[in-house]
Amino acid sequence: MHTLPQLLSKIAEFAARNPFPDSPRELYEPCDYILTLGGKRLRPALLLMGYELFRDDVEQALPAAWAIELFHNFSLMHDDIMDAAPLRRGQPTVHSKWNASTGILSGDVMLIYAYRFLGLIDAEISPALVNGFSGMATEVCEGQQMDMNFETRSDVSVEEYIRMIELKTAVLLGYAVSAGAFCARADWPASERLERFGRLAGIAFQIQDDLLDTYGDPAKFGKQVGGDILQNKKTLLVLKTLEVAPEADRQELRHWMQTGADNPDEKVAAVRALFDRNGIPELIAAEKKQYQEKAFWYLDGVAVSHERKAILWKTVEDLLEREF
Amino acid sequence: MHTLPQLLSKIAEFAARNPFPDSPRELYEPCDYILTLGGKRLRPALLLMGYELFRDDVEQALPAAWAIELFHNFSLMHDDIMDAAPLRRGQPTVHSKWNASTGILSGDVMLIYAYRFLGLIDAEISPALVNGFSGMATEVCEGQQMDMNFETRSDVSVEEYIRMIELKTAVLLGYAVSAGAFCARADWPASERLERFGRLAGIAFQIQDDLLDTYGDPAKFGKQVGGDILQNKKTLLVLKTLEVAPEADRQELRHWMQTGADNPDEKVAAVRALFDRNGIPELIAAEKKQYQEKAFWYLDGVAVSHERKAILWKTVEDLLEREF
Repeated sequence: MHTLPQLLSKIAEFAARNPFPDSPRELYEPCDYILTLGGKRLRPALLLMGYELFRDDVEQALPAAWAIELFHNFSLMHDDIMDAAPLRRGQPTVHSKWNASTGILSGDVMLIYAYRFLGLIDAEISPALVNGFSGMATEVCEGQQMDMNFETRSDVSVEEYIRMIELKTAVLLGYAVSAGAFCARADWPASERLERFGRLAGIAFQIQDDLLDTYGDPAKFGKQVGGDILQNKKTLLVLKTLEVAPEADRQELRHWMQTGADNPDEKVAAVRALFDRNGIPELIAAEKKQYQEKAFWYLDGVAVSHERKAILWKTVEDLLEREF
Repeated sequence: MHTLPQLLSKIAEFAARNPFPDSPRELYEPCDYILTLGGKRLRPALLLMGYELFRDDVEQALPAAWAIELFHNFSLMHDDIMDAAPLRRGQPTVHSKWNASTGILSGDVMLIYAYRFLGLIDAEISPALVNGFSGMATEVCEGQQMDMNFETRSDVSVEEYIRMIELKTAVLLGYAVSAGAFCARADWPASERLERFGRLAGIAFQIQDDLLDTYGDPAKFGKQVGGDILQNKKTLLVLKTLEVAPEADRQELRHWMQTGADNPDEKVAAVRALFDRNGIPELIAAEKKQYQEKAFWYLDGVAVSHERKAILWKTVEDLLEREF
């Protein structure tokens, strides 16, 4: 059993031992670049934690863990182009540092490398592992498409939004934990429970993300609090308000969302007051709590000692209690 | 054993039985669109022909054949964005009919579906099949990167150009034929020979492509003869001229390539005359012939009866003798 920092250094060592080729430099340099932008590498760590529930020789699972990290960064690289995002973690995105063609092709090769690393896992289990990965990857694309569709729709329901975040981000967490277990030859019920655990925790995590953007502690939150409001994003707070608030408040919210932010502080304060008087943060927090509780119900049911579960449990709990 | 038209209808039936999901429509509609633009589906047919060298139950190889077709169309969809190409086979490209985001995401999901279809092949052989596919796919990305690099370079050698077309297009043909053989449990020497056959034939095919664009019969050639000259493309004809022609002709060629085409017929005629007086078409045709002969030397060496090889032999021979 290893702590999170120990697992992260194993991942970093594996990555250092398995660099991209030197040439063509224009293809692989952007891959190295996005991988060093300071992501937390939580997804590969979750995969290793899933493995360590059952077995101690965690090195066996490193290629699969690295595959997950490459897949995640492939999707970030392509999503950033689609979202025309200039920055990621405060640094220029690949397509703005180079150009869109670079972002497309380097992203493609990262996805292919994800499959290459999965292919290093024992041939006895790799077909099922790869097929599960492809199913997950398909869902991630479908989630990104739903997200793009939502931009031009005015009738998105809370239910559809939850489904979108489930596909776009939560299925990857579910796959990560269960793939770790699968690599460790866990039985089907354990892998299934861990898939549900990761998926439900992932949904709770994304719900919290929306909440923190508006209600985070400015001293702890990495980004500008209220950023979603200023960008008129259709977050869960907005969609919930449009479902439960009286017509006057719904109209006011729609008005703000079609208004520029000449006075950003005023806009953020007004929209937040509107959320507050409709009890939206409490409703959203309750929704998050439901997903979180269900997630841990599944983890609790995995037939493994509490000691073995401790690190995975604590890591995900911390993640879901973070204030930044 | 089946004829090419029989194999093509098997592929079409398989595709019809295995459609993309209905939803999200915005994600999968562009995939259906590009697949119906009238590609010749030669790559999946070559895979099936590779299989039929050794076994008769060709249905077993259809998922792998379809994976090859999806991969090919994924790469077309992304390349068209990178090349800012408005048309493909006379129809709007995906990114011009929809937008670049659609082209990126629908391309991504087609690549993932290629892996899904490969995953339908027997688990006993799918790991090696998938790993070979990933290696080939990596090379295709590297070839596309080289091609993009060449656009801004003035010192590309004939050798580098051949290496680029080998990676960008020929390795896929090599993989197709050998993957078919591998699915049929051919031994390593046979798969290896067929990989070399497909790869070398693919290089010959691309060399011919450059030749036909300038020297094709206008009555038979589908596109405008001289198109490459008018687009100032650094084709093999150009690169060979820059290697072998006297300085005066090299200067004249560079001049034409920096000149607009106010009088297209004059430009095409002048550049063609320049190629002619340096014997370039003959040199290029001889280079093509070398690759072609080596390709068939490998096919000849595959330990299978001439009868079983006849269809594959004839199909590739016709391809390399085409005038359109």
